[in-house]
Amino acid sequence: MLTKINHIGIAVNSLDEAIPFYRDNLGMAFRGMEEVVEQQVKVAFLEVGESKIELLEPTSAESPVAKFLEKNGPGVHHIAYQVEDLEAAIAKLESEGARMIDKVPRLGAHGARIAFIHPKSSNGVLTELCQAGH
Amino acid sequence: MLTKINHIGIAVNSLDEAIPFYRDNLGMAFRGMEEVVEQQVKVAFLEVGESKIELLEPTSAESPVAKFLEKNGPGVHHIAYQVEDLEAAIAKLESEGARMIDKVPRLGAHGARIAFIHPKSSNGVLTELCQAGH
Repeated sequence: MLTKINHIGIAVNSLDEAIPFYRDNLGMAFRGMEEVVEQQVKVAFLEVGESKIELLEPTSAESPVAKFLEKNGPGVHHIAYQVEDLEAAIAKLESEGARMIDKVPRLGAHGARIAFIHPKSSNGVLTELCQAGH
Repeated sequence: MLTKINHIGIAVNSLDEAIPFYRDNLGMAFRGMEEVVEQQVKVAFLEVGESKIELLEPTSAESPVAKFLEKNGPGVHHIAYQVEDLEAAIAKLESEGARMIDKVPRLGAHGARIAFIHPKSSNGVLTELCQAGH
């Protein structure tokens, strides 16, 4: 069902402070930034192998990522796995009793179609399924 | 410097409870279990693309993973990136002022040589460098 880790989403207080660790110390290729208005975050993309690191900085105190930072401090916010058929993946999970946050795909960064599994069904790890947009 | 995400380490209360989500619901290939005595954990390996998920269950209350679970609950414990030359990677990071937990490589699961970067130097994410043993 899964083809790879698409990305790991990491909540940070400041992209400007976090990017140098990944780009300069670890040497990942920087692949640009994007604002995801719906989630009230700025996202920076860095590439490692077939996957990406997505650094998430909240743009407002109401952002889900701002609330995560307040509760947990900086750290891994979610893991996103790539699937080939998102509707089929959601249907399989629901038929097996997994709890979805998104029963219907919505739009993520880079034009991807995404759906989140509830942490109650994934041992505390917020888990995203992601069908690449391009 | 990095070739890929080698694995994501996820702290769980029980391998028996966590494995079915990754193996059955997400469909990852189960690649076995191992006890890492030094870290007082049992580890289950599941494959996704070029990477693995490592589920970590403490075998004692003194395990670093037990302390993590007590403080944070289940969730992502660390991210491990593969490097080709671990000594060179440590030397580069230290020369740039990053703080290492391990200045000298030590032995991890699967005979890999590993070194942890301090979370202070990696924006709150415990980060492992890993030179595969086989």
